[in-house]
Amino acid sequence: MFQRIHHVGIAVRNMDAALALYEKAAGGRLIERGSSSDGSLELAMLALGDTLIEPIAPLREGTEIGKFLDRRGEGLHHIAYEVASVAAELARLKEEGFRAIDEAPRPGFGGTRIAFLHPQSALGVLWELVEVPKV
Amino acid sequence: MFQRIHHVGIAVRNMDAALALYEKAAGGRLIERGSSSDGSLELAMLALGDTLIEPIAPLREGTEIGKFLDRRGEGLHHIAYEVASVAAELARLKEEGFRAIDEAPRPGFGGTRIAFLHPQSALGVLWELVEVPKV
Repeated sequence: MFQRIHHVGIAVRNMDAALALYEKAAGGRLIERGSSSDGSLELAMLALGDTLIEPIAPLREGTEIGKFLDRRGEGLHHIAYEVASVAAELARLKEEGFRAIDEAPRPGFGGTRIAFLHPQSALGVLWELVEVPKV
Repeated sequence: MFQRIHHVGIAVRNMDAALALYEKAAGGRLIERGSSSDGSLELAMLALGDTLIEPIAPLREGTEIGKFLDRRGEGLHHIAYEVASVAAELARLKEEGFRAIDEAPRPGFGGTRIAFLHPQSALGVLWELVEVPKV
């Protein structure tokens, strides 16, 4: 089962504009800014108290985020849930009939393990499972 | 400034199906289920650890949620931020050029005070400000 909301992912066209909004207007604290391992996306993580916002911007043509932006414009993209084990939750949800986008856990931002589930399985919401590294 | 994410609002067509998903598949705990003060919306609040999910379904024709569902289908609808004072944050954000949907705080679900800001002001995301009653 899911432990809590880990972060909310937001599709943006311009990362500088997004950081200005979330840092200056909302009071978020920038924790990390970088790019995805394949270099196709720019990512940031901002803390608001004990909760997190993740703006995501495309860095090249043909990304899923780029297609989302073309289709729907900037806005809420996904919701990520913290789980004890992505592998175990993915197996459970597939057993319950959920359609996985990632068939196995993969490395995520900030040393996490992640997997996405298809929005068709979750009433139109793109779900991400996140396993936070144990310190 | 915003203190934390208070909840994530999700537009759904059928509240029973939404509760089945968020209670059974995600492990959410139903805190409250009811309707908006004007009777136009069905609302629920589910806890996942110390975070909250709010499914919203239209109860009649012509609601904003109904229009959202017709336009975009079920999915992520808004993000709500906890603030110390909705009135003060609304005044600050309007001063900074944000467009308000609610010109003044109004009663929200569960004894809160709330106000919505226009997504045009926040890179396509519908922001809700929430002031939780002091106990």
